[in-house]
Amino acid sequence: MRYLADVSEGDQIVDIYLCADRQVLKTRAGKTYYSVRLQDKTGTGDAKIWDLNDGIHDFKKGDYIKVDASVVSFQGSMQYNIRRLRVAQEGEYDPVDYVPSTEFDINDMYNEFIGFIDEMDDKWLNQLATQFFVEDKEFAKAFKAHSAAKSVHHAFYGGILEHTLGMLRLAKFIADQYPVMNRSLLYAGTMFHDMGKLKELSDFPIIDYTDEGQLIGHIMIGIEWLTTKINKIPGFPPVLANLLKHMILSHHGELAYGSPKKPELIEAMALHYIDNIDAKIKTFSTLLDGTDPQDDWVGYQRLFETNIRRSRW
Amino acid sequence: MRYLADVSEGDQIVDIYLCADRQVLKTRAGKTYYSVRLQDKTGTGDAKIWDLNDGIHDFKKGDYIKVDASVVSFQGSMQYNIRRLRVAQEGEYDPVDYVPSTEFDINDMYNEFIGFIDEMDDKWLNQLATQFFVEDKEFAKAFKAHSAAKSVHHAFYGGILEHTLGMLRLAKFIADQYPVMNRSLLYAGTMFHDMGKLKELSDFPIIDYTDEGQLIGHIMIGIEWLTTKINKIPGFPPVLANLLKHMILSHHGELAYGSPKKPELIEAMALHYIDNIDAKIKTFSTLLDGTDPQDDWVGYQRLFETNIRRSRW
Amino acid sequence: MRYLADVSEGDQIVDIYLCADRQVLKTRAGKTYYSVRLQDKTGTGDAKIWDLNDGIHDFKKGDYIKVDASVVSFQGSMQYNIRRLRVAQEGEYDPVDYVPSTEFDINDMYNEFIGFIDEMDDKWLNQLATQFFVEDKEFAKAFKAHSAAKSVHHAFYGGILEHTLGMLRLAKFIADQYPVMNRSLLYAGTMFHDMGKLKELSDFPIIDYTDEGQLIGHIMIGIEWLTTKINKIPGFPPVLANLLKHMILSHHGELAYGSPKKPELIEAMALHYIDNIDAKIKTFSTLLDGTDPQDDWVGYQRLFETNIRRSRW
Amino acid sequence: MRYLADVSEGDQIVDIYLCADRQVLKTRAGKTYYSVRLQDKTGTGDAKIWDLNDGIHDFKKGDYIKVDASVVSFQGSMQYNIRRLRVAQEGEYDPVDYVPSTEFDINDMYNEFIGFIDEMDDKWLNQLATQFFVEDKEFAKAFKAHSAAKSVHHAFYGGILEHTLGMLRLAKFIADQYPVMNRSLLYAGTMFHDMGKLKELSDFPIIDYTDEGQLIGHIMIGIEWLTTKINKIPGFPPVLANLLKHMILSHHGELAYGSPKKPELIEAMALHYIDNIDAKIKTFSTLLDGTDPQDDWVGYQRLFETNIRRSRW
Amino acid sequence: MRYLADVSEGDQIVDIYLCADRQVLKTRAGKTYYSVRLQDKTGTGDAKIWDLNDGIHDFKKGDYIKVDASVVSFQGSMQYNIRRLRVAQEGEYDPVDYVPSTEFDINDMYNEFIGFIDEMDDKWLNQLATQFFVEDKEFAKAFKAHSAAKSVHHAFYGGILEHTLGMLRLAKFIADQYPVMNRSLLYAGTMFHDMGKLKELSDFPIIDYTDEGQLIGHIMIGIEWLTTKINKIPGFPPVLANLLKHMILSHHGELAYGSPKKPELIEAMALHYIDNIDAKIKTFSTLLDGTDPQDDWVGYQRLFETNIRRSRW
Amino acid sequence: MRYLADVSEGDQIVDIYLCADRQVLKTRAGKTYYSVRLQDKTGTGDAKIWDLNDGIHDFKKGDYIKVDASVVSFQGSMQYNIRRLRVAQEGEYDPVDYVPSTEFDINDMYNEFIGFIDEMDDKWLNQLATQFFVEDKEFAKAFKAHSAAKSVHHAFYGGILEHTLGMLRLAKFIADQYPVMNRSLLYAGTMFHDMGKLKELSDFPIIDYTDEGQLIGHIMIGIEWLTTKINKIPGFPPVLANLLKHMILSHHGELAYGSPKKPELIEAMALHYIDNIDAKIKTFSTLLDGTDPQDDWVGYQRLFETNIRRSRW
Repeated sequence: MRYLADVSEGDQIVDIYLCADRQVLKTRAGKTYYSVRLQDKTGTGDAKIWDLNDGIHDFKKGDYIKVDASVVSFQGSMQYNIRRLRVAQEGEYDPVDYVPSTEFDINDMYNEFIGFIDEMDDKWLNQLATQFFVEDKEFAKAFKAHSAAKSVHHAFYGGILEHTLGMLRLAKFIADQYPVMNRSLLYAGTMFHDMGKLKELSDFPIIDYTDEGQLIGHIMIGIEWLTTKINKIPGFPPVLANLLKHMILSHHGELAYGSPKKPELIEAMALHYIDNIDAKIKTFSTLLDGTDPQDDWVGYQRLFETNIRRSRW
Repeated sequence: MRYLADVSEGDQIVDIYLCADRQVLKTRAGKTYYSVRLQDKTGTGDAKIWDLNDGIHDFKKGDYIKVDASVVSFQGSMQYNIRRLRVAQEGEYDPVDYVPSTEFDINDMYNEFIGFIDEMDDKWLNQLATQFFVEDKEFAKAFKAHSAAKSVHHAFYGGILEHTLGMLRLAKFIADQYPVMNRSLLYAGTMFHDMGKLKELSDFPIIDYTDEGQLIGHIMIGIEWLTTKINKIPGFPPVLANLLKHMILSHHGELAYGSPKKPELIEAMALHYIDNIDAKIKTFSTLLDGTDPQDDWVGYQRLFETNIRRSRW
Repeated sequence: MRYLADVSEGDQIVDIYLCADRQVLKTRAGKTYYSVRLQDKTGTGDAKIWDLNDGIHDFKKGDYIKVDASVVSFQGSMQYNIRRLRVAQEGEYDPVDYVPSTEFDINDMYNEFIGFIDEMDDKWLNQLATQFFVEDKEFAKAFKAHSAAKSVHHAFYGGILEHTLGMLRLAKFIADQYPVMNRSLLYAGTMFHDMGKLKELSDFPIIDYTDEGQLIGHIMIGIEWLTTKINKIPGFPPVLANLLKHMILSHHGELAYGSPKKPELIEAMALHYIDNIDAKIKTFSTLLDGTDPQDDWVGYQRLFETNIRRSRW
Repeated sequence: MRYLADVSEGDQIVDIYLCADRQVLKTRAGKTYYSVRLQDKTGTGDAKIWDLNDGIHDFKKGDYIKVDASVVSFQGSMQYNIRRLRVAQEGEYDPVDYVPSTEFDINDMYNEFIGFIDEMDDKWLNQLATQFFVEDKEFAKAFKAHSAAKSVHHAFYGGILEHTLGMLRLAKFIADQYPVMNRSLLYAGTMFHDMGKLKELSDFPIIDYTDEGQLIGHIMIGIEWLTTKINKIPGFPPVLANLLKHMILSHHGELAYGSPKKPELIEAMALHYIDNIDAKIKTFSTLLDGTDPQDDWVGYQRLFETNIRRSRW
Repeated sequence: MRYLADVSEGDQIVDIYLCADRQVLKTRAGKTYYSVRLQDKTGTGDAKIWDLNDGIHDFKKGDYIKVDASVVSFQGSMQYNIRRLRVAQEGEYDPVDYVPSTEFDINDMYNEFIGFIDEMDDKWLNQLATQFFVEDKEFAKAFKAHSAAKSVHHAFYGGILEHTLGMLRLAKFIADQYPVMNRSLLYAGTMFHDMGKLKELSDFPIIDYTDEGQLIGHIMIGIEWLTTKINKIPGFPPVLANLLKHMILSHHGELAYGSPKKPELIEAMALHYIDNIDAKIKTFSTLLDGTDPQDDWVGYQRLFETNIRRSRW
Repeated sequence: MRYLADVSEGDQIVDIYLCADRQVLKTRAGKTYYSVRLQDKTGTGDAKIWDLNDGIHDFKKGDYIKVDASVVSFQGSMQYNIRRLRVAQEGEYDPVDYVPSTEFDINDMYNEFIGFIDEMDDKWLNQLATQFFVEDKEFAKAFKAHSAAKSVHHAFYGGILEHTLGMLRLAKFIADQYPVMNRSLLYAGTMFHDMGKLKELSDFPIIDYTDEGQLIGHIMIGIEWLTTKINKIPGFPPVLANLLKHMILSHHGELAYGSPKKPELIEAMALHYIDNIDAKIKTFSTLLDGTDPQDDWVGYQRLFETNIRRSRW
């Protein structure tokens, strides 16, 4: 397959892409044309269909489409002028090629993740984690495949697993270095902190906020989900349930960032920093990856409110 | 009974008060004495026991105590010098005399409150409100008696009922004047918005934050409580459940004020303003009531970040 | 008349519109053309004159123009390609068709408004309101016709009357429910709070900030105006004048919103909330009205800093 | 006269001071005593009357009192133990000795101030300034004597004149260096910018906010005053009146600092900086003067949010 | 030479300009064209090369290019359609014509600047200033020629000299009017405050941030430079060195503006205001100069967060 | 030795303490007494000398004093009533007993610290670190002994070493987990980030800001120090020097926290988070340690702007 990231000006391509968007527009002269967003796992591209002839079959947003196009450069970006187009059949393409994906092996990551449950001494938290990540097959499957975000950081297949695992490694280091930490509580908070995102964001290939996600948000969703399972574990200490909920509730660190409580436990505070550091490093390196490797300075970054630079000398 | 608000310098009092606090201290000369905070429904007073003689029986914070004291003025405040003290027997006092209370009749308010349920056309929300406020006797009893706050506004017996009822009247006016509002949703949001406070704050006579209240807060508690009952109503529309939860979640109006979502529905936005206006007017009038009626200006108020004035000319 | 909101792609129109703007531009090929903004009470539309032939007579911004045009869709919006154009004669059109207008009857609203003056017990405030809204015919006429804003909320013919009346109804409710309020002062503050806008904003059909409006603003203008009339009422209590001025001065609620004083009176605080709630509900419903009724979510709204949703389930 | 600033521990004093405050208190042992704040132009001092014998005559806050006292040091401060006290007769004291005063000659400053009017070329502004500062004898007298603040900077007799004159000198320099400035407008804005303080703050010897000052503030008061005189000058250009009002209105520079408009004219912006620099330098030097000249560092200053240091090496 | 500011629609120009930028683009029809930014000291202009014929020689950003072009108006701006183009030879143009420059004479300004050194009584600061501005010829030359900014204020040849000199005049006035100021320290701080910009910003004709400038900034660079010279002056008092460094370090006034220390000395505070007032007046007058002199209001200015107006009536 | 933390009410003590402060005061009755702050490594205590008899020898702040005192409880705190006092001789006491100290072994920590230098592949950074921490014996000695702060976190003997070492361990983990990090740069930035504190804060036993510390701060001081050594290493790459300086400069993360640059390198951003997490965890656990182990909730903490809780259930 010819990935969008590898296409050059002047190329002729005949391949299948995901139609991430489709709009019907008119030229100034009044002629109707289509503007189409092509997507594969390496990114997206802007395509036009100037001539709506017989070679252009019906299609809609979300379809996998086979296109025959030539590539031109327009105002510094690639543009795909599509001459022929039809919807592809299942089997002609592998969905995995059309969503960006973690660079790590999902099963390796999952196994390492499960290993952290064994380190949790508290029997209630251990049991709760086991129920979610081991016994609840549907949950585990979703957790392994979901994105951690609509954009910004870990916005790819396996993203929430990669992010949570990165955080668990940091959590282990923190629990080793600072014995004041309760390891079980810190791990449990880490494991569950973003689980609400499984319902806040819709699934691949097109990630968006769900109705529930917009109305009540992943923090709330996660806590409700947790509560449901906790209520089914006879004898689960109510105080522990509140401490764990507080971990989830406060992990954004500040009210202004959407946490209705500031961290009141040392593990909750640590969780906030662990989340922050894994997310920010991933964001920063994603920004560096997305720019010309020849440039030291890669331009002003709204997320960091500064210009950023490659570290080399 | 002789209320603390009515006591004057030079009085001799022999009466029963709630011991809201008790500390053991020493004078500069090294002599041990007690500092005691007396409470009744009109306020609190600072008492001292300088001489720990036989007339001073054992007592602790939370006891109703019968004291024999003389009243002096010390640095502008009343001070009660206690000569004799014993713990009072149940029956010697009426608990109602020891907590500040709404000036309105609880049952009248409750009946008016119930009347609003009848106006709710949506059968699901009507059913939900009925289950809480009518059928759940324990909940209804707590709701009628509880405070709406530890301090600030409606911090008295019946406070949450008075505050919620005041808001319902406003909600009715708003729903009448602006037909775009969904009356059932606005009423339901209003009725349930602060219900989490029944568990966030401990009961009279000594109101304080509970462990659960500090860890997860009344917004979260209220939504969990609501969810429990909703889950028992077969067929309750999930979307409506999310809309109602959003009403509770967003009623503080801003992330920085502890709402993890800003109001996204017109009823949610209205609820935020209705809550604000009833609370602020009560706060303002309570501040005016607590000051010398002869003064036009009653001094800088931290809550309003300004000096406030009685409106007269 | 064919309103702009009712026009569809492919239509041919021959009708009179207000020219809200006119620019002379060039195509990339160097040919001169006109870009014209057409306006009627249902909105505005983007028109082009590609061919400056004899059928295109002289015209300027602010003219009512009769156009002969065909309607195309360009990048998702309607575009009017004008073939012929002349300035319309007075009598050919009714100005009322060209400005957005309140949906309510102006005289009904005005009569209801006047009724509130009768409820004002304070003779000085009653007299002052009567002088402005009843006896000063020119003022009353302007007040009935003016907009409450350049954009945002109540930005239409009769807008300031509709907004002030909506607030008076709320003020009446507040004064009824909270007896601590001085009804006369609250009504007077409400009636006069935005009167400075009559001079801050220019008149229909094209609303813009006046020189005076930009330099000193409607709060200042309103107070000066008020002072002029107050000074002509012998015996008007100076303290009352200051209280009333304070109501106007502080109605934005915060220094950062342009009020040089925060509300120091309970009526001033209430006025701020009453203004806010009427304006915000109108803004919210206007935003909902302006979007596709089939969508639940209507997109991110800068004014509310969130995505907003229709309340239905 | 023996000034408070010159008194040492162990002194016996018999002199007249202003009673700036008087409170009736009780010792822990229940004995009544008076706490009195003495004031003269060099500062204030804390006095006590432990023994309310026949030598202590009736007196109240605001009286000039003759006291017979011994000076002790209590917790690092001087304390005056008063043995005898009577109210002084007019003629026994000179009020000038009891308020802090500018170190410059009032008439010299006033004459220099008047000289700036001559430099104003604009006949309307020149005429307006002449009417206030030259022809309105009562205004001129008040302006020469008033304080510029209740505390902070230039809080002394002649303070507003000293401050305004210091600003005029800066304004002259600015107008000379930057020809873009309109000298007349800059001078007029400077002369009038704080005139509202003559009514915002009560007079010496005890400065406090007036009712009018608290309700509408010196910016508003100043503009109303200005308007009254402007309206009596036939032909005064309305646009110029608005520009001048804007200068006053915007001189705090930011909405959050109480200016309902930000500076929109280059002279208005300059006025804001000129006001700021004169006020801040005076504040800084007053803070340095009030501390031990042997210390380099004089401690954290809330007004500057930092520790400040004497500049020497 | 025909300056860009003097060109009108319809002109034919044959002249040399600096190529400030060059991009290769495509029309919608797929034809390659160049977009070129022309620069001279009066501003910049947008040029296009639609036809890449033999008359268009090779050139790159930074070249001085001789162009043969016709001027059209496109969407309200001038556009230069280039027909022929070649790189100009040294000698054909004078670089001074291609960068905006101070309107004052560089040498006159420099001589006046040097005169301020003579007024510095402190021998160490006098010696330090002399070493930089008189004896270090290379430094002096750069200081006379450099810009004070990439944009905003004094962004032209000689800009840092003009700005620093304007500040010195103000500093002299301040030192005269407020004797508490140490003149030598105030002058020295003023002279050196922006010297780091000589290395923070690259040289004319194309000003941009240097690597060092972005990484450590002009405050840091200036202090390092200063330290190098101070270390070579035997006996320079270390305390004085710290005071001077503090002046540079704190001259932005607030941490949030990039000063790691707030002003702790009265001269440091004055320096901050002097810098601010000279920069803001220049910015304001530059904005006025850049707009149509017929308009009173010149539109919303992001830098001042308000619309600004010419002061005339 | 009898540590202050182990003293109980009613004890009689005869031991040597550091005099951390000494004030001369007077009782209300006019009698002179001394208020003395005693210090040892477990904390400080409030002592009084009521009777200035022959047993009380001369002493001053900073002396090690031998006292004979009885312990009473006054308003909830211990108070030491001193009867006899003399200055102790060197040899009578061990200074180590009088300053709070790290609980870890200084030499163990130092050796582990040195081990990190070996991991630095970049020869320039390795050489620079070696020069400071290994070859510069005086620097190394100071670094091992100094505090990391005047208060807040790691405010004890060995504090800067413990804090920097804790950060290095985290840095190693980060460099291992995120290969994008340049290990040498991250380690170097970590090692040097707070070195300026060795001059910003005075030495034990009484830590305070130095003149240099207040005027230019530890960030500036550290960079100057670094520059001095870098300049002596022939061939040290200037770009690398700037990158390293940027690490130090930006490690507070935000301008408002005193960093004149925001982190522009991924290692600089990581350094900021590493500093934050080690400091915050230490602060949190210090706060927990300082409170009654029986309480779950330990009260509102200004540093975290919330009440904090021990994590147990």
